[in-house]
Amino acid sequence: MAVFSLLFHLPQPFLPHKPNTKRLSIKPPTHRTRARFHASNDYRLSWQNELKRSDGPLPKEKLEDEDFFRATIDRRAVDNVRMLIVDAVQHAKAGHPGMAPGMAEVGYLLYRHVMRYNPKNPRWFNRDRFVLSAGHGCLLQYVCLHLAGFESVQLEDLKQLCKLGSCTPGHPENILTAGVEVTTGPLGQGVANAVGLALAEAHLAARFNKPDAILVDHRTYCIMGDGCAMEGISNEAASLAAHWKLNELTLIYDDNHNTIDGDTKICFSENISARFEALGWNTITVENIHEDMESFMVAIRSAHNETRRPTFIKARSSLPPTFCLSVLRQIVKTLIGRLSGKEGTYKAHHGTFEEDDVRRMRGKVKWEDREPFHVIPMVYREMQKRAEHGENLLEQKWKSALRHYQAMYPQEAEDFNILLHVDASRGYSEKCLNELAKALPGLIGGSADLASSNKVYLKGYDDFQLPETPQGRNIRYGVREHAMAGISNGTALHGSGLIPFAATFLTFSDYMKNSMRLSALSHAGVLYILTHDSIGLGEDGPTHQPVEQLAGLRAIPRLLVFRPADGNETAGAYKVAISNRDVPSVIALSRQKVAANLEGTSISGVEKGGYIISDNSGNELPEIILIGTGSELCLCEGSAETLRREGRRVRVVSLVCWRLFDGQPREYREFVLPPKVPKRVSVEAGSPIGWREYVGDGGVVHGVRDFGASGACLDTFKKFGFTEENVARIARSLLEE
Amino acid sequence: MAVFSLLFHLPQPFLPHKPNTKRLSIKPPTHRTRARFHASNDYRLSWQNELKRSDGPLPKEKLEDEDFFRATIDRRAVDNVRMLIVDAVQHAKAGHPGMAPGMAEVGYLLYRHVMRYNPKNPRWFNRDRFVLSAGHGCLLQYVCLHLAGFESVQLEDLKQLCKLGSCTPGHPENILTAGVEVTTGPLGQGVANAVGLALAEAHLAARFNKPDAILVDHRTYCIMGDGCAMEGISNEAASLAAHWKLNELTLIYDDNHNTIDGDTKICFSENISARFEALGWNTITVENIHEDMESFMVAIRSAHNETRRPTFIKARSSLPPTFCLSVLRQIVKTLIGRLSGKEGTYKAHHGTFEEDDVRRMRGKVKWEDREPFHVIPMVYREMQKRAEHGENLLEQKWKSALRHYQAMYPQEAEDFNILLHVDASRGYSEKCLNELAKALPGLIGGSADLASSNKVYLKGYDDFQLPETPQGRNIRYGVREHAMAGISNGTALHGSGLIPFAATFLTFSDYMKNSMRLSALSHAGVLYILTHDSIGLGEDGPTHQPVEQLAGLRAIPRLLVFRPADGNETAGAYKVAISNRDVPSVIALSRQKVAANLEGTSISGVEKGGYIISDNSGNELPEIILIGTGSELCLCEGSAETLRREGRRVRVVSLVCWRLFDGQPREYREFVLPPKVPKRVSVEAGSPIGWREYVGDGGVVHGVRDFGASGACLDTFKKFGFTEENVARIARSLLEE
Repeated sequence: MAVFSLLFHLPQPFLPHKPNTKRLSIKPPTHRTRARFHASNDYRLSWQNELKRSDGPLPKEKLEDEDFFRATIDRRAVDNVRMLIVDAVQHAKAGHPGMAPGMAEVGYLLYRHVMRYNPKNPRWFNRDRFVLSAGHGCLLQYVCLHLAGFESVQLEDLKQLCKLGSCTPGHPENILTAGVEVTTGPLGQGVANAVGLALAEAHLAARFNKPDAILVDHRTYCIMGDGCAMEGISNEAASLAAHWKLNELTLIYDDNHNTIDGDTKICFSENISARFEALGWNTITVENIHEDMESFMVAIRSAHNETRRPTFIKARSSLPPTFCLSVLRQIVKTLIGRLSGKEGTYKAHHGTFEEDDVRRMRGKVKWEDREPFHVIPMVYREMQKRAEHGENLLEQKWKSALRHYQAMYPQEAEDFNILLHVDASRGYSEKCLNELAKALPGLIGGSADLASSNKVYLKGYDDFQLPETPQGRNIRYGVREHAMAGISNGTALHGSGLIPFAATFLTFSDYMKNSMRLSALSHAGVLYILTHDSIGLGEDGPTHQPVEQLAGLRAIPRLLVFRPADGNETAGAYKVAISNRDVPSVIALSRQKVAANLEGTSISGVEKGGYIISDNSGNELPEIILIGTGSELCLCEGSAETLRREGRRVRVVSLVCWRLFDGQPREYREFVLPPKVPKRVSVEAGSPIGWREYVGDGGVVHGVRDFGASGACLDTFKKFGFTEENVARIARSLLEE
Repeated sequence: MAVFSLLFHLPQPFLPHKPNTKRLSIKPPTHRTRARFHASNDYRLSWQNELKRSDGPLPKEKLEDEDFFRATIDRRAVDNVRMLIVDAVQHAKAGHPGMAPGMAEVGYLLYRHVMRYNPKNPRWFNRDRFVLSAGHGCLLQYVCLHLAGFESVQLEDLKQLCKLGSCTPGHPENILTAGVEVTTGPLGQGVANAVGLALAEAHLAARFNKPDAILVDHRTYCIMGDGCAMEGISNEAASLAAHWKLNELTLIYDDNHNTIDGDTKICFSENISARFEALGWNTITVENIHEDMESFMVAIRSAHNETRRPTFIKARSSLPPTFCLSVLRQIVKTLIGRLSGKEGTYKAHHGTFEEDDVRRMRGKVKWEDREPFHVIPMVYREMQKRAEHGENLLEQKWKSALRHYQAMYPQEAEDFNILLHVDASRGYSEKCLNELAKALPGLIGGSADLASSNKVYLKGYDDFQLPETPQGRNIRYGVREHAMAGISNGTALHGSGLIPFAATFLTFSDYMKNSMRLSALSHAGVLYILTHDSIGLGEDGPTHQPVEQLAGLRAIPRLLVFRPADGNETAGAYKVAISNRDVPSVIALSRQKVAANLEGTSISGVEKGGYIISDNSGNELPEIILIGTGSELCLCEGSAETLRREGRRVRVVSLVCWRLFDGQPREYREFVLPPKVPKRVSVEAGSPIGWREYVGDGGVVHGVRDFGASGACLDTFKKFGFTEENVARIARSLLEE
């Protein structure tokens, strides 16, 4: 167990446990109890008692063996992790019991011996990041967070697993639980998030570190399961991670051979390590993590020694189970639900354990007479050492480095400070109109192989490429939309104020829809720039022409979808998007040219989501309202001019962002769209779904009701009736009704 | 060139070209000219003239060398393919000139020497299938189809490239162009489609072939590009293809190092052959296809000899360009846009060629004095041989095998006949209510690792696994939603009457949305079974609870989205879905239990999309209408009962499929939802978007406006106001307005 002492390179004074008083969960503290560790004056005695319980009487020389001491503590702590998981599953009658117990060793070792963090300040900037891509194993993370001293997860919270309002939901959610970095559950997403976190680290290290002051220096660890390995997004993200040489990233693959439908052999015959090697990863197999925890630590050391490759650790599993100290030398591996009597069977993926199994498990680790949710005081004490290490040493050291940095490099420190304090980015919006990238030190992003088409390349900045130009702010995602969005979520949730943007054709938002949803759910303020936003795309035909995408994106809760009509509105959309760092935004832009600036458009109008562009009604109400977005707003204006020449009172309204408009006071909404003017025509070259809300029973929704067609832009627009003449004709019929 | 003669194993009599008279494109024939090959009596002479033109005078012994004869014909034909591509791009001022010229050799060799097909009957069942996953290279396929004698693509059509209404759209569409098997363009989709086509072949071969009568025996070829290789869907599909041992599948990777944004080295560092090997593929590299076409044929032969692995052929490229006969021995490779003076640069991905380049290209192949769209008569004649081979030999032989089969195995022949004549499947719906799988010999499918949750496992049938049980009808997709949908599209478009179903949670339709869209666009009648269809999913929390997905799916043109409320409606949804083989369907089902059969629900009601479930208004109009779907219909019924007890006239309407309801005559729609009853409440536990259409200005849309929450089903329903009491309360406020 020499490896532990190597990693354990810092002095670890024994300190009594200080109960934390500040809760970091977003929920207010409730009447919950924290199981406290009552400091014992005789540490050795406590440990010997625990050993006696688990292993029976031991010879004296064993008891004085330091290595045996450490190994048994770690082993017993893992037993405790596992029993807490079992108890929580049984108590909540929910959860996914399979994965979490199987990875108990990995979870414990990461939190006890590997990761650098401060539970008293879960947002400490230079902490290592942990992502549980196999999010259904959330209990593993909750239990580790609890033992590690994160105030956000109390024993009471473990009992509330999956209950409405708890901070221990069925899958990890960063917005509910301090210590959780990203929201996972949809498989494979976490792998992309982890790549995004590691990208942020590499990028910021290159921009800010100085030889005499290292501010950015942390690692990202991610546990993925078989499901994650099968999902395409994880292959996309892993390919990029290797291309970018993200050596600070370590992926731990829970090779448990089980998914919901059964043994993975029914659908999975790959040599996954060879695949990752082909992608360019350092790959290591840990044959037997349960019996031999040290081999995992050796793998971690190898990962830390890598300078050009991310590391993939396959934690093998194949043999029957146990986890009690007394059979430590028995050959065992990380079989899913290994302890449960459902060992190695897919039934352990979800559901609860049978009571008989629980009795057997308790028997195996000599836990029979203990209450549910028992924590061995020694285990709290062990974890407390890591916490003290993080708090008293790592963060203090970092703060002193920061002070040195501020003194020596005031300009860079200023930029770094802006980045760190995300709220300050609200101030960005003032500057964003002219030179976005220059004004926004955090802006970083790219396109899924459409940088030239999406027009998102930041001129004057490098590509993000390691090892040459990690400070570059242009990310080359290749044709990997899904990974792009997942990586952007990771970058956004790195918490360093980076503002990731991600660009592709609007149609191909389909490829990354789940990641976009997670942006909204997990408060990742990603900026999606989606061009070629209608049938106006032209020649590439219906496979590339979006029709239903705007409707689908508008339906995603919280997401702001803008479809600006011109330069003014585009600036406005950027302004709102950049100002809302907790909300992702979509800016849908046309391929075809639009007017630089239409008369009547404005940034302030965009901020309200909808507003009047033009109206010739004077003191009267208009006879008809034409409502447009994007490239069709200009078309509405043209049709309105025709109708006005015919003596009609016509209002044109831009409805650039539905959600913002819906959030305006009723008076404002009825000022823009007066209920007394029922004759309205909406004009948008996309699905009609949703427009009735604004057009009302008396109006006409002019949209695209079928797929587009290959043809020149003007031809397709004409085919689907998007011409000034046709809109005017529709309006006339309505007026004459 | 001995390899050619090996493959060329059937006698190929010289026959004069017979112009085809039957058009197979769905467009009516127009005033177009077909460049005819005026049969020459002196084949040798024509060839010698062509040789003189391209290579200058040649010694007599060369002219009499059979190998040289064949090689020069093939080489010159490839020149011609390439010049047609160049001419079409210049004429249409559109297209993606890069990929198509680079893969001219591959396209020509496949259509001339490898694939078995009959251009006079593009739907001949036992034809080899070709998929151009790199759909932007559509011109390659159009030119090959033209030269091969497919009536669907005339020279005139090449001139209409990307024009509105042409059968040569910007990406290949099976519904527009006979000879195109699937619709491609969104990258990676074609790889999944090809896996689905190969799956269908392997499955049907196992079910129908007899030792003395082989009915199903064809191969699938697919060209993929760098973009396809990067997309996650292609890795998912390739993993499954290897797992399934689909040895009849050959993937040709156009390793051209170029995507839109530039050289792939900016974002792609994988060893892709090693990756495919890790997945379980036979991998071959063809170093130099342009100089050495034979090496490609050797690779094809290796693919044909494989019995347990699909084959991945990497067609290498690295060196500078040329394609004229006179420099045949010069070292060249398939550089993208190789001939264009834009060789090896990304500028060739799209746009047109510069006129200078075109002049240079024409010069290289001695084409200067030829009109655009020139076809060497010899080339038509060569391709004609393959056509004759397909028509006179392969299809005739197959038909005679079929007659033998019908005589010897009448029962199986009957099943096979039902499968082949897709239209007959309409008859299926009569039987579908009880034992769907038994009644529907074509039903085949599975789930993305949720078979138990989705309840879609076909009992009494095997898993589809090679080599043991390819006749199995349960497909184990693993956690690979995107590939599942793409493969299902391929299976549906195999044209053998297989009815693929694909199941997962409704939320994870996000992962496969683009493939679902392509189902609708390409008339692939896939049946999507999407369970756990609302926040009622419960404990797994918001990452797994769909909110916006129904709205997004309803917006996809043509797709039928059902949300049945009980057993009757589920049967109705299946009936309509199965009866519509050109249209994909979604059946969204709840996780929580619903009533087996609600009073008032009916199959015939589902066929109309919306209908009255109950009404106590007698001869009067109701005061209020409650509109529900799925699990909320029962809730509406409960609330209605409460209101009726309070003396209210209440109608309950099921709106199980919006699109079907929208297609009903106005009278029917107004009978169900009378305009004189403005007080309506829609109740659906999903995004409110789109409901205003049915609820009107005077109604209330009761939906879910934010993400769900982790908690028990009843708790989440209560939190979001989906209780009988709350719906009754909403109705009461509306009634009292």
